[in-house]
Amino acid sequence: MSDRVLGVVMNGVTGRMGYRQHLVRSVLAINEEGGVALSDGERVRLRPVLVGRDLGRLARIAEPHGITGYTTDLDAALADPDNTIYFDSQVTSARVAAALKAIAAGKHVYAEKPTAETVADATRLAEAAEAAGVKNGVVQDKLFLPGLRKLKRLIDGGFFGQILSVRGEFGYWVFEGDWQPAQRPSWNYRAEDGGGIVLDMFPHWAYVLENLFGPVQSVYAHVTTHIPERWDERGQRYKATADDAAYAVFELAGGTVAQINSSWTVRVNRDELVEFQVDGTQGSAVAGLRNCRVQHRGSTPKPVWDPDVPATARFREQWQEVPDNADFGNAFKVQWEMFVRHVLEDAPFPHTFAAGARGVHLAELGLRSHAEARRVPVGNP
Amino acid sequence: MSDRVLGVVMNGVTGRMGYRQHLVRSVLAINEEGGVALSDGERVRLRPVLVGRDLGRLARIAEPHGITGYTTDLDAALADPDNTIYFDSQVTSARVAAALKAIAAGKHVYAEKPTAETVADATRLAEAAEAAGVKNGVVQDKLFLPGLRKLKRLIDGGFFGQILSVRGEFGYWVFEGDWQPAQRPSWNYRAEDGGGIVLDMFPHWAYVLENLFGPVQSVYAHVTTHIPERWDERGQRYKATADDAAYAVFELAGGTVAQINSSWTVRVNRDELVEFQVDGTQGSAVAGLRNCRVQHRGSTPKPVWDPDVPATARFREQWQEVPDNADFGNAFKVQWEMFVRHVLEDAPFPHTFAAGARGVHLAELGLRSHAEARRVPVGNP
Amino acid sequence: MSDRVLGVVMNGVTGRMGYRQHLVRSVLAINEEGGVALSDGERVRLRPVLVGRDLGRLARIAEPHGITGYTTDLDAALADPDNTIYFDSQVTSARVAAALKAIAAGKHVYAEKPTAETVADATRLAEAAEAAGVKNGVVQDKLFLPGLRKLKRLIDGGFFGQILSVRGEFGYWVFEGDWQPAQRPSWNYRAEDGGGIVLDMFPHWAYVLENLFGPVQSVYAHVTTHIPERWDERGQRYKATADDAAYAVFELAGGTVAQINSSWTVRVNRDELVEFQVDGTQGSAVAGLRNCRVQHRGSTPKPVWDPDVPATARFREQWQEVPDNADFGNAFKVQWEMFVRHVLEDAPFPHTFAAGARGVHLAELGLRSHAEARRVPVGNP
Amino acid sequence: MSDRVLGVVMNGVTGRMGYRQHLVRSVLAINEEGGVALSDGERVRLRPVLVGRDLGRLARIAEPHGITGYTTDLDAALADPDNTIYFDSQVTSARVAAALKAIAAGKHVYAEKPTAETVADATRLAEAAEAAGVKNGVVQDKLFLPGLRKLKRLIDGGFFGQILSVRGEFGYWVFEGDWQPAQRPSWNYRAEDGGGIVLDMFPHWAYVLENLFGPVQSVYAHVTTHIPERWDERGQRYKATADDAAYAVFELAGGTVAQINSSWTVRVNRDELVEFQVDGTQGSAVAGLRNCRVQHRGSTPKPVWDPDVPATARFREQWQEVPDNADFGNAFKVQWEMFVRHVLEDAPFPHTFAAGARGVHLAELGLRSHAEARRVPVGNP
Repeated sequence: MSDRVLGVVMNGVTGRMGYRQHLVRSVLAINEEGGVALSDGERVRLRPVLVGRDLGRLARIAEPHGITGYTTDLDAALADPDNTIYFDSQVTSARVAAALKAIAAGKHVYAEKPTAETVADATRLAEAAEAAGVKNGVVQDKLFLPGLRKLKRLIDGGFFGQILSVRGEFGYWVFEGDWQPAQRPSWNYRAEDGGGIVLDMFPHWAYVLENLFGPVQSVYAHVTTHIPERWDERGQRYKATADDAAYAVFELAGGTVAQINSSWTVRVNRDELVEFQVDGTQGSAVAGLRNCRVQHRGSTPKPVWDPDVPATARFREQWQEVPDNADFGNAFKVQWEMFVRHVLEDAPFPHTFAAGARGVHLAELGLRSHAEARRVPVGNP
Repeated sequence: MSDRVLGVVMNGVTGRMGYRQHLVRSVLAINEEGGVALSDGERVRLRPVLVGRDLGRLARIAEPHGITGYTTDLDAALADPDNTIYFDSQVTSARVAAALKAIAAGKHVYAEKPTAETVADATRLAEAAEAAGVKNGVVQDKLFLPGLRKLKRLIDGGFFGQILSVRGEFGYWVFEGDWQPAQRPSWNYRAEDGGGIVLDMFPHWAYVLENLFGPVQSVYAHVTTHIPERWDERGQRYKATADDAAYAVFELAGGTVAQINSSWTVRVNRDELVEFQVDGTQGSAVAGLRNCRVQHRGSTPKPVWDPDVPATARFREQWQEVPDNADFGNAFKVQWEMFVRHVLEDAPFPHTFAAGARGVHLAELGLRSHAEARRVPVGNP
Repeated sequence: MSDRVLGVVMNGVTGRMGYRQHLVRSVLAINEEGGVALSDGERVRLRPVLVGRDLGRLARIAEPHGITGYTTDLDAALADPDNTIYFDSQVTSARVAAALKAIAAGKHVYAEKPTAETVADATRLAEAAEAAGVKNGVVQDKLFLPGLRKLKRLIDGGFFGQILSVRGEFGYWVFEGDWQPAQRPSWNYRAEDGGGIVLDMFPHWAYVLENLFGPVQSVYAHVTTHIPERWDERGQRYKATADDAAYAVFELAGGTVAQINSSWTVRVNRDELVEFQVDGTQGSAVAGLRNCRVQHRGSTPKPVWDPDVPATARFREQWQEVPDNADFGNAFKVQWEMFVRHVLEDAPFPHTFAAGARGVHLAELGLRSHAEARRVPVGNP
Repeated sequence: MSDRVLGVVMNGVTGRMGYRQHLVRSVLAINEEGGVALSDGERVRLRPVLVGRDLGRLARIAEPHGITGYTTDLDAALADPDNTIYFDSQVTSARVAAALKAIAAGKHVYAEKPTAETVADATRLAEAAEAAGVKNGVVQDKLFLPGLRKLKRLIDGGFFGQILSVRGEFGYWVFEGDWQPAQRPSWNYRAEDGGGIVLDMFPHWAYVLENLFGPVQSVYAHVTTHIPERWDERGQRYKATADDAAYAVFELAGGTVAQINSSWTVRVNRDELVEFQVDGTQGSAVAGLRNCRVQHRGSTPKPVWDPDVPATARFREQWQEVPDNADFGNAFKVQWEMFVRHVLEDAPFPHTFAAGARGVHLAELGLRSHAEARRVPVGNP
């Protein structure tokens, strides 16, 4: 058990995601294992200080876990020099102001995505952190799920040769809400409330593409609202003003093409809710969030299109499951450990506020591409 | 057994496709069944007159089947008033001149696709046939394969409700030719020889989309050459100047979006070499050339994305095979029967030279879309 | 946690069904979840007051659950203005008198089925409640089991097109009691004790048919006693005077035909103890109490009867399971929540005493149909 | 090889059923096996004399089988004293006149079902044969299929104890003819052309019930036309005036109840296109045309209806397949052999013209039952 302890101000962990994934399954789980292991073998434990607006609610969360530090006074928490890291999982609209306070107080800052509601704000936040010289990071949990980690491992191991293309399919059927209740909140389908699948998913595609395959250089998106009318949580019919499907082609540095469909109006004919097929000169892979299957050049079949012959080849069975060969741990916890090592020993951490801003940027450019009926170059925001 | 016989000049059936699919499995097979059945119950048999450049080769093809009519003299064959139909499956570059002769001779003309090498020629041919008042048709065999016919039947039966989107994946890995011989001819990969996947496949997508889902109104295509160097039939390295992959989005009348990837550089993670997923408000289907599976609104699952829970649902097993309920027959033969009925009793036949010209047109617009980095409207050629 | 509390007099929960399903799994389970959720988000908890004839027995039931209100004095319980609802799960013969007292005291009344032993009494009870202006309801739990709820959802979603017919099979082999003890009480088989499968099951078919498919307009029933002699709980042989099987055809408004067999003398060649097959122009379903499978028009096979060919089609595998897509909860609890919302905010509740009377009525008409050897029209009782 | 030969006049074997089942698979197949084996071991071969209206057509059928006797002159064929049996598989409307001629000529007469178009004619024919003292028989092929023969074997072996009830389900979905062609001829759906499922199937139920379970004593039928509009062989819409579904209850001598549904508007949730479930005091069976499964009293489960417990019992797996234990042969051939033995050595043959008349009678009474809304007693026609 380590003696070294790092104070972490956690703002907004009364919400489901903040409480469950960040407090319980990341920070507390890290402590249970003895702390974050640094490169010299030392282990550092985290001392959470919960911040929120309702002291009773904070107490009900903190006490069962033996957490004594909780407060409604953010300024006081930030003033305490023992607190090194500020974490923010408040609603997006409250994030920028609080994060800027933490930066001003010299704290290293880690935040849920999106870091801000607009590219301008996201960029301002990134620049402020940069100027202050504090470490900063944004949650990009999908990268740390087993499927994408095995895919990354294949890339790092040179499995693909030159990567030529990426096909992505994300989505499922979100019920309209009339004869069966919808499984997503109605604001997702109202543009005036910040809804839309492009704003929701393109930030994910931004970090997945740039971390696995390289910088995005252009985007073309065909964006649409397939279901123009839905029923809300109270059974009331409403007009769906936000996009519910986007058919996009991204060009990456080096010529790789990434074609990704995102849809809440598609029935799932896949193994997982999201799948990426990657084709390279030496082999191909299909990865979801959990699993990953491959076909190497050496076992690639040679199909011939013959209208007289029924297709008897079982193409799917010609792929092979990639074994885990590791315990990948909780995706959120893994990124927490990375951030702590980034703070304490400057370990690499590409998931910065600047990266977060690029995600919001890509969503905005996708929408612009559709509106202007053209392929749009992607630079820095 | 019918007494009525129709003379059919068949030019270019010494090639594999012309001989096997058009002569043996269509024209001769029709005769074995007693002829084409007309709506009044009468049956009409076909008397093939083979035309080619090599009399010996024609004889070797004709005689085993008891065919007595074969000649190297196209003009004489066209001059015979007993010959009602001219069929052309020569190499594309020879098609237009011969077909124009047949039109001038007042024959009804049926031809392999593409009807010409350029939109201009294809359009000229369509106009000539129109002006002469002769029936004309182009082979569009994919439409008559069981998978797409079952899909069409579902559409006609109202299965989908409103059709929202179509996803198409076509392709397989064409070997580069170095360590394993390529399974396609090298000219396919040379632009200067008329190669390229867009010219090859977009004419197919044109007729599939317009016959199943409605007129194409715009196209965006991202076209690329993923493998820039290949080895030809003699083992010689050559530069691949033609495109080998295209990532396209088509907009159809009524707002349906068709996203179709075509690639000779993709490994097959599908049940068939080409698959179309169609999603509608009432149900979805996935159709290949042979099979078709459906998921109706009533049995659509409601997946929820939860990072803590492994995806245990077996999404693929939630689809159901569509039974044949019919003997679909050989796709080429079915279209031959349709064309004969079109000639003799003016039965509907939408697969005209004009439709053939639209296919070549769509390929040209796809290439232009990529070159100009924009979505291109699709009108008549 | 809500502050609003509703007093509920529960008469007759010392029986197995009353205790387990109504007290523990409905009323107490609702409280554990914070109460019944009203449409404005408020939650209302229920305060049970147990009434019975044996104070000791009441205490033994109440105290382990921390229930302090229990009494043998029904009048006192009804006199307490804090008690809003009266619930009755006594033996049927005691129900009418107690329920009329509760109505007279201005209570809303909820009761197990059947509401009375005769149509005359059931109708009198319905009229009394109506005249007093109190809310009234009868337990119709089968409607709230997952199988029938999925069936209802399919109907509401328009899955069937026009519904043509319903086939129902209910039953299992009830042992005669000689070599193996019977699994049902002997009074079920004695007419003089109110037994008989028509009286037991037709009230269920009444509410299932009218809630799912529409009003019943006529009934024909062939009623019989297949096993005329049984052995009772003490091993004594007795004469079975009540019917143990009924073969019925119901005509519903709109022309739908419902053919339903009910039998205690049938061995189970089904997936569940009761199954309904529903056939419509657009699709069919087979629903039990738990599961529901469908076959849509688009995937309907086309069998041909050919005596030379063995039936190789696997017809059962051509049906598809309907996913739950929801947590259906305990059927009794769901109906309790509906009734509370009916009382407090006039939410719809078709399961009234009048509906209960229609169930008893249908049983009586079924028996009359058999006796008079004719199809009998069904009006209001 | 026997020397004894029986001349058989076969009238109407140019039709598919007559040629394939009666000539080739019965009469010729019997000869190939050496003839019909009589009880004394002698074998009798059959010499077919084909009668029809088109001599060329008769020749094309006869000659490939080496049959030399064929003629268009029925009278001559009947005048030949070497011809002992007359068989009729003409269209029903031609049957009575020809059969009466054969009876007048003293021939034993065997005929396809139905023996006549009306009960009056069918009865007249039966009476004529009776008066002339000739043997007479009607085809009742279903009885000789493996499923029903195994069922009969169980009955004869006392498997069921007392038989209490029979449940029959026959039918499948006959396509309307619009989006998929219908698999039955359109006249089946026109009352004016002799269509209707009652006329088609009740004669089958008549002989199945009386041969397996005993005489029919009453019938109640609910008859309907679920699909009022269909599309015929030429794609023309027509009004369906005949019944396409019948829900019937038959009472048999001894109190057995047979409830049988017949429908062309039902999707198949069974193992076979027709299935009979038979329940008896000692055991139950489910038989189709091919297979038969049983559950004996000793292995009958004791299900209890408990709403808290999902039905995990796999009821279908509690039944056991009945082995063939015999080669059942072609159903038509088996009955031919029985009829020849009936003619030559007076072996039992219950499938007489009188039985045939009872089948037509039952259909007429079924229709009357529906029209008069009552259970109708069934006597002799």
